[in-house]
Amino acid sequence: MADDGRSGPRAGDLFQLLRDGKAWTRAELATTTGLARSTVAGKVDLLLSSGLVVSVGEASSSGGRPPSRFAFHAEARTVLAVDVGASHVRVALTDLNGEVLAEERELMPVAAGPEAVLGYVIESAERLLAATHHPESLLAGVGIGLPGPVEHATGRPVKPPIMPGWDGFDVVGFVQQSLRVPVLVDNDVNIMALGERAGFWPDVDDLLFIKLATGIGSGIISSGHLQRGADGTAGDLGHVRVARGDGVVCRCGNVGCLEALASGDAVAHSLAEQGVDAPNGATVVELASHGNSAAIQSLRQAGRDIGEVLATCVNLLNPSVIVIGGSMAAAGEHIMAGVREVVYRRSPPLATTNLRIVLSRAGERAAVMGASQLVSQHVLSPAGIEAALLSMATAG
Amino acid sequence: MADDGRSGPRAGDLFQLLRDGKAWTRAELATTTGLARSTVAGKVDLLLSSGLVVSVGEASSSGGRPPSRFAFHAEARTVLAVDVGASHVRVALTDLNGEVLAEERELMPVAAGPEAVLGYVIESAERLLAATHHPESLLAGVGIGLPGPVEHATGRPVKPPIMPGWDGFDVVGFVQQSLRVPVLVDNDVNIMALGERAGFWPDVDDLLFIKLATGIGSGIISSGHLQRGADGTAGDLGHVRVARGDGVVCRCGNVGCLEALASGDAVAHSLAEQGVDAPNGATVVELASHGNSAAIQSLRQAGRDIGEVLATCVNLLNPSVIVIGGSMAAAGEHIMAGVREVVYRRSPPLATTNLRIVLSRAGERAAVMGASQLVSQHVLSPAGIEAALLSMATAG
Repeated sequence: MADDGRSGPRAGDLFQLLRDGKAWTRAELATTTGLARSTVAGKVDLLLSSGLVVSVGEASSSGGRPPSRFAFHAEARTVLAVDVGASHVRVALTDLNGEVLAEERELMPVAAGPEAVLGYVIESAERLLAATHHPESLLAGVGIGLPGPVEHATGRPVKPPIMPGWDGFDVVGFVQQSLRVPVLVDNDVNIMALGERAGFWPDVDDLLFIKLATGIGSGIISSGHLQRGADGTAGDLGHVRVARGDGVVCRCGNVGCLEALASGDAVAHSLAEQGVDAPNGATVVELASHGNSAAIQSLRQAGRDIGEVLATCVNLLNPSVIVIGGSMAAAGEHIMAGVREVVYRRSPPLATTNLRIVLSRAGERAAVMGASQLVSQHVLSPAGIEAALLSMATAG
Repeated sequence: MADDGRSGPRAGDLFQLLRDGKAWTRAELATTTGLARSTVAGKVDLLLSSGLVVSVGEASSSGGRPPSRFAFHAEARTVLAVDVGASHVRVALTDLNGEVLAEERELMPVAAGPEAVLGYVIESAERLLAATHHPESLLAGVGIGLPGPVEHATGRPVKPPIMPGWDGFDVVGFVQQSLRVPVLVDNDVNIMALGERAGFWPDVDDLLFIKLATGIGSGIISSGHLQRGADGTAGDLGHVRVARGDGVVCRCGNVGCLEALASGDAVAHSLAEQGVDAPNGATVVELASHGNSAAIQSLRQAGRDIGEVLATCVNLLNPSVIVIGGSMAAAGEHIMAGVREVVYRRSPPLATTNLRIVLSRAGERAAVMGASQLVSQHVLSPAGIEAALLSMATAG
């Protein structure tokens, strides 16, 4: 924000210019900021000594010694990006641009509890750092996505339905006992939205990411920012009522929720009622891929139900991109056909002229990409850079 | 944004500190910004000469000459705030805090066309400036709310259904032929959301404003910012489908839209079908206020239909305040009873624990308050202040 009470020339502010990925001379930095060249030189020296900025060769010159050029060095720090799912944990070590350097994946139920899951994350971090020869001292932060509601300011899960033992657990404090860096926690769908946008839609400011899996949820990016709402529950579209839902009771206790009709479990259940052996959503996707017509019909109907809620989202949020991800997105075209059918019929022309509805490109890496992004947004902000330089000065 | 390419010490940035309404000394400004005291002194002089900052007495001192204090002076400029409704035009002259100095209201159909309506606005501006003895040279800008979709970047209406002659009209250019100041245009519901928040909920970052009138629409504030969506159509909840709507055809051509069931016209129509003479929504409100039970029942049912869509809004946006405004809000408690009944039944507990659903306090002034706010946000931003000081320097 422009009015956050700072306006002086600080290294963190100067750094924001250098983040554009281009090479800058000191003179260009001075002209753009209006700062004295001596001030710029001092800030650049500080950033060079941190490693976050590097010299990248010389500019052409009309005569005399050519001036040096500087640019952001994304490889100067690492980020630990963690995706905790209902039944798996994925841990990736990335650079500050989200490039994955190494990763591990383990089948582990979130219901094993926070000590077991986060204990694995910490051990995994040590293995990944050692394997890639990155010192822990250059780890910039840890980003964690959890499969339930999280109070963003504190990183504590809030009454998460499928995470016994996690309610109110101090995730940040627990991880910081071992890794003394900033730890940021958010729910998995918010993080997937961040990851999908950072990786594939960086210029799109209004994007809706839908996760279709055992449950259904969404992450909302409006005006370029993730929207969490007043209590962090924004994007909870699994419990929106759909017209076909009369009489169908959801696990939340309400009637007619989208999740009770169109989640992986719900589709499997409706197939089982037709005598098709489908214990879960993955089986339905498998059956559809082999041409089972009952499975295909069920997925298409689920797509229509999802489309009904997405039409409402289009009315309310007017996104330019809707991304469908999560494990059920593997049933891609069958679901998408139903979604598109309803969204384009129900939504106003002005809101759908430029609307794209696409399958996730980040796929199962969306969450770790977003967890990395959550950390880099934080540590590369003006305040984050100031804090990093300050701790460096204190340590030195 | 922190990374918009500026980080040098400019008068516009310094001014953001002074906008807090408190009195600052030069020394406090220097300490907070990290700028040299000579730099601060120069910027303060520039702001003083603009009149946007004034000296407000002296600080206590431990000895020697007491230092001067400075503060933002909202009365230094005026704003023309315009609310164009379906059948009326309201024009207010305000200061930079949105305080109304004088206003006029005229019955005039928007269908009279842009030249007639905006011609009245310009004549009204001249009368209001003259009556309050404010020179046109100190008019900071014009904010206009229109009853239809507006492309925010250009201020042009986009296929507005009830505004014949306005589609694509250059509102900004037309007004600037007479008033050579920034002109900002938005749709009326967005502007009402801004006005209600600025006036009564300045600390609420997630607010939903619902306008119930001939039509139904909403303005969405998330993370403290008005959300317009990719094409400016965000908040269009009048055409969300509701469960009770099967078979009811809306004027948009779709079936089951909220507006076709719960707008003022729709409620009047349903009463007429029961043999009650109610030509429009205003009559229904009047009947209900006299205890007509059919009118009360109809309004309560409209409240339930609206509540069904608002429950979805709560799931998606997780606001902490929902404000119900517009002419039908005069039927306050009858509609609210239905709204609350459904929202608290359908929405997740975590999202409703802190949720307040209230009637508009700004009332029929919401739009002019918001139009004023739209202008002051623009002209008091760092870039707006720089532009104002620059034009002052050029003129001088």
